[in-house]
Amino acid sequence: MDAALLYSGGKDSTLAALSLDPFYDVTLVTGTFGVTDDWRHARSAADRLGFPFRTLDLNATVAADAVDQMLADGYPRNGIGAVHDHALERAADLDVAAVADGTRRDDRVPSLSRAEARSLEDRRGVDYLAPLAGFGRGAVDRVVDGRLDVTAGPSESVPSADYEAELRALLADREGPDAVADVFPDHEQTRVRGPRP
Amino acid sequence: MDAALLYSGGKDSTLAALSLDPFYDVTLVTGTFGVTDDWRHARSAADRLGFPFRTLDLNATVAADAVDQMLADGYPRNGIGAVHDHALERAADLDVAAVADGTRRDDRVPSLSRAEARSLEDRRGVDYLAPLAGFGRGAVDRVVDGRLDVTAGPSESVPSADYEAELRALLADREGPDAVADVFPDHEQTRVRGPRP
Repeated sequence: MDAALLYSGGKDSTLAALSLDPFYDVTLVTGTFGVTDDWRHARSAADRLGFPFRTLDLNATVAADAVDQMLADGYPRNGIGAVHDHALERAADLDVAAVADGTRRDDRVPSLSRAEARSLEDRRGVDYLAPLAGFGRGAVDRVVDGRLDVTAGPSESVPSADYEAELRALLADREGPDAVADVFPDHEQTRVRGPRP
Repeated sequence: MDAALLYSGGKDSTLAALSLDPFYDVTLVTGTFGVTDDWRHARSAADRLGFPFRTLDLNATVAADAVDQMLADGYPRNGIGAVHDHALERAADLDVAAVADGTRRDDRVPSLSRAEARSLEDRRGVDYLAPLAGFGRGAVDRVVDGRLDVTAGPSESVPSADYEAELRALLADREGPDAVADVFPDHEQTRVRGPRP
């Protein structure tokens, strides 16, 4: 069975890929609005891990609405959640049995409720999988440690390799660089370079 | 890292075992009050799947309280939930980095809330893993199909190989066989015989 996993190149979505690998033919997919080429970091990680990779073209209107939402809210959660939902819908357009993401138990965003998960499954005729939904942050760190070569740092120096980096760029472009710091709390990103040598 | 997975011999906990296997040294553990020997079915499945197995002695007082609770409620959810919590605590007594169960996304029982999961982890110094928490019933069925040899049927003909069968026996012993039908709704159990030949 084919599964498309939303992939940021970080440790959560990489561990999600390794978790699904025994049960699915997993393709790693990274959504892009065409704003930056940060998705290339995800492709590099996918290559080194030996997974097929493709980008998903996301709708520019969704990006503009997400930036509006984040500016209105003063925090990124709802805007990022809307883009995540859109990316899952685009992944469901592919010819796959399942769409998946790297949401952890403790994540507040992006995260589908049970009702949203069932709605996606019923409307689109795919299974929705969140293989890390039953793992806390500590467990993920302990499993990843020793298995993956990971860089970590603040989002400015280790940008996420998915739409989050593009949303930050759009926000900076529209409202100036200070707006990014106002909306996005300090946050450590991880980027997987590949399996640990 | 060692993990102890609560194991009923059914398809959910078996798929949970296969999911954790690449990341942990998994031991399958089945709680018993010493009331029936249904746990032997779980041991058979564990043997055929090639996982280490052990029983966990559960406290008879917890069983008696659970039967009281189920009779008072008229349904089994809270009683079974209390026994599940107790079994996880007993699993955490083992020398393991993680305790785990086969809870699915759509399960109402047994299921820990995020707060209960964190409490278990903080109090006992273990990770709590629910590798199927992000899988719906359909996805589990599709992954299991073709991979495992599964028998399915009503609970009377295919009893669960864990404490649920013992709770039914205790209830029947105390209140008569009709009490079991009153408290437990019709429910299909699955039992894994082993890998699909």
